[in-house]
Amino acid sequence: MNALPHDPIRFDDGLRRWAEGLFERLREISFDGVGISRATYGAGETEAMRLIAEAASSEGLDVEYDAAANLLISLPGTDASRPVLATGSHLDSVPQGGNYDGAAGVIAGLLGLVHLKRHGIAADRTLRVYALRGEESAWFGKCYLGSMSLFGKFDPADLELTQSGSGETLAACMAAAGADIERIRRGEPIVDPRDIACFVELHIEQGPVMVARNIPVGIVTGIRGNVRHPRAVCRGEAAHSGAVPRWLRHDAVFAVSEFVMRLDRHWETLLQQGQDLVVTIGILGTNPAEHAMSRVPGEVRFSLEYRSQAPEVLAGFEELVQEEGAAIGRSRGVAFDFGPAVPTAPAVMDERLVAHFDAVCDRLEIPHERLPSGAGHDAAIFANEGVPTVMIFIRNEHGSHNPAEAMAFDDFFLGAEVLINGLLTVTESEP
Amino acid sequence: MNALPHDPIRFDDGLRRWAEGLFERLREISFDGVGISRATYGAGETEAMRLIAEAASSEGLDVEYDAAANLLISLPGTDASRPVLATGSHLDSVPQGGNYDGAAGVIAGLLGLVHLKRHGIAADRTLRVYALRGEESAWFGKCYLGSMSLFGKFDPADLELTQSGSGETLAACMAAAGADIERIRRGEPIVDPRDIACFVELHIEQGPVMVARNIPVGIVTGIRGNVRHPRAVCRGEAAHSGAVPRWLRHDAVFAVSEFVMRLDRHWETLLQQGQDLVVTIGILGTNPAEHAMSRVPGEVRFSLEYRSQAPEVLAGFEELVQEEGAAIGRSRGVAFDFGPAVPTAPAVMDERLVAHFDAVCDRLEIPHERLPSGAGHDAAIFANEGVPTVMIFIRNEHGSHNPAEAMAFDDFFLGAEVLINGLLTVTESEP
Repeated sequence: MNALPHDPIRFDDGLRRWAEGLFERLREISFDGVGISRATYGAGETEAMRLIAEAASSEGLDVEYDAAANLLISLPGTDASRPVLATGSHLDSVPQGGNYDGAAGVIAGLLGLVHLKRHGIAADRTLRVYALRGEESAWFGKCYLGSMSLFGKFDPADLELTQSGSGETLAACMAAAGADIERIRRGEPIVDPRDIACFVELHIEQGPVMVARNIPVGIVTGIRGNVRHPRAVCRGEAAHSGAVPRWLRHDAVFAVSEFVMRLDRHWETLLQQGQDLVVTIGILGTNPAEHAMSRVPGEVRFSLEYRSQAPEVLAGFEELVQEEGAAIGRSRGVAFDFGPAVPTAPAVMDERLVAHFDAVCDRLEIPHERLPSGAGHDAAIFANEGVPTVMIFIRNEHGSHNPAEAMAFDDFFLGAEVLINGLLTVTESEP
Repeated sequence: MNALPHDPIRFDDGLRRWAEGLFERLREISFDGVGISRATYGAGETEAMRLIAEAASSEGLDVEYDAAANLLISLPGTDASRPVLATGSHLDSVPQGGNYDGAAGVIAGLLGLVHLKRHGIAADRTLRVYALRGEESAWFGKCYLGSMSLFGKFDPADLELTQSGSGETLAACMAAAGADIERIRRGEPIVDPRDIACFVELHIEQGPVMVARNIPVGIVTGIRGNVRHPRAVCRGEAAHSGAVPRWLRHDAVFAVSEFVMRLDRHWETLLQQGQDLVVTIGILGTNPAEHAMSRVPGEVRFSLEYRSQAPEVLAGFEELVQEEGAAIGRSRGVAFDFGPAVPTAPAVMDERLVAHFDAVCDRLEIPHERLPSGAGHDAAIFANEGVPTVMIFIRNEHGSHNPAEAMAFDDFFLGAEVLINGLLTVTESEP
């Protein structure tokens, strides 16, 4: 760990007002009557890019768009040949969403660069803010379109996806936004991961943990992967409730309830062992076609999803699911069929970067904790391409993807200060 | 006990084929593609009434509908002033149910009357078959609508109940079926219980006991009562599955699963103490409007029903339900609302009639046993109105309320013979 090269950077009131004004103008151009709508590769996202680009230009920062129409804002380093120190997030939003999901990470990065520029500080390496396109799946059914394009991971077949509202193809929308469709179609990488020294994404927390624990800044230890069973079913035997004694029942509701409780106990045990896990049965129901209060339910359909940062926890939990289903099947005379398992791999944050940003918080005397990210982010794409990556979470009330998201500016500035101080002190070896 | 006035009645092959054909036509008009659907006060039930009425008319029996649109089939006795000897059951079915639940009792009664008519035998008292409406709760959430109406016990507020499938009100459905809605609304009794000497309901057994014990005919000693909560709900808080850790969840599915498991343990304990009880959650589901695999479910709706022959067990179990709901509410941060509790009192069968029908089986040399009825039946309504009542169970494989119910016609004819021989030999004193 390096000592900070300067006194720690703290933003002055003028810069804070400048940032608040930028958020306010962003809100004005994105308000849809209920919340914020910045459609992926649509007018809202493009308008937001333009606003941010103008703000950066007017401060003397370098501005360019890449072949996927992502916006890149740079402050050149004294040695431009070395890999860049990168930060950023996305500028699109879900329909009727909030103003901070994505945009906070872009403006936080910009803020650091503006501070350095205004104070005439040059880093050794170039600092770059990525304002990414198309992170939200709400518009085209796929997420990470901008960051996948960066690394040539965008599937050209997805150009034919249509926008949920307008029905326009993604190809048409990308072209209108200024992307180089032919290059995208060829699947050519836009950037070499080795040219990025690290990627640090600041993002509002989408859950209630930091509010509950009263911490403004979180350092993300990993982005959870998950396994989903979209179409699980437990089949027993329908019967008249009054006529079948307990020992002869094959009751799907009692069986699934026991299954859920057994998973709950395993979940509790794994947490006590320090493992990362969440288990969700989001969809559950008896068969409406055979609904009757006095009918022993013969069938329950349900979804099952579990998330963890650790691939071995995901694999181990799948074994528990299958074993418990089989055991309850034997004891209650029912049959569990979990259907296909759909996996999404976890993304590992760089351990040295986690430790580094932890230490930066300590030195800035900012209360912080390590926590996992339950939801997915562009940072996962960078991490899985081998770019050393970490995320900074900002406390945020009421979750995200809704107009009620509530990030305090004081928390935001603390996180943005951690970001720029951290970026400036990342050494070659970390990484 | 009287001696049989004639040689015991045994049905000839022609009458057996006639009955089998009637069951077959009933199945044809009620088949829904999977099982049998004869909706309470709906087209299926009305069509079944019409089929049975035509069969009775064509044999010269008297046919009429009462103010609740129940079908009455009569063979006048030599002394029409005396209370009638009544039998019967219901003609509706659950959705995707079986052909024999209810209909067997109607056709068994009809069979006896047709035999007497064809052989020119007149009893001293009028014999009456009730083909009752609305026994199944599957359609409007309430059972015994037809038999309750008979005795002025129908709650006029229930006219506003809506059919689970079509959403039509019970009032509209009853009117369409030909009921006198204004009379029903006034709660006026249709029949005086003192005008019914006895009521004997033949019904398929809805449990596995008689198959297991290899007896074709059972004489029922009592009918369980029940308490139903048709519209219970557990409310938690919807959230993104990845973003909310276990300790901050208010997960309705986990809460309801724990509730079901706690009831399961109480049930087991009460059975070990020798109590009579069955517990059923026949309907259960998350809210389809907020369905997503990665959403912590904020709401589960369910039905709850428990049955016992003992009123004190029903009362005690309600306390357990409320206590466990409150305890889980506190520990998991959810709220259980069980909604209204709909009670149905247990019913005692007439001891002299039980002994009489036992003796009839002996004389006909039909293997039989006494057993309780776990399920409720219209017979309970008659019994609780002071009508001396008994039930005859017919062995039936695979339970009821499903398309696989399987009653052997040989068993059915034995039971129907017990029914008519028993009715003809009931003396004034029993009762």
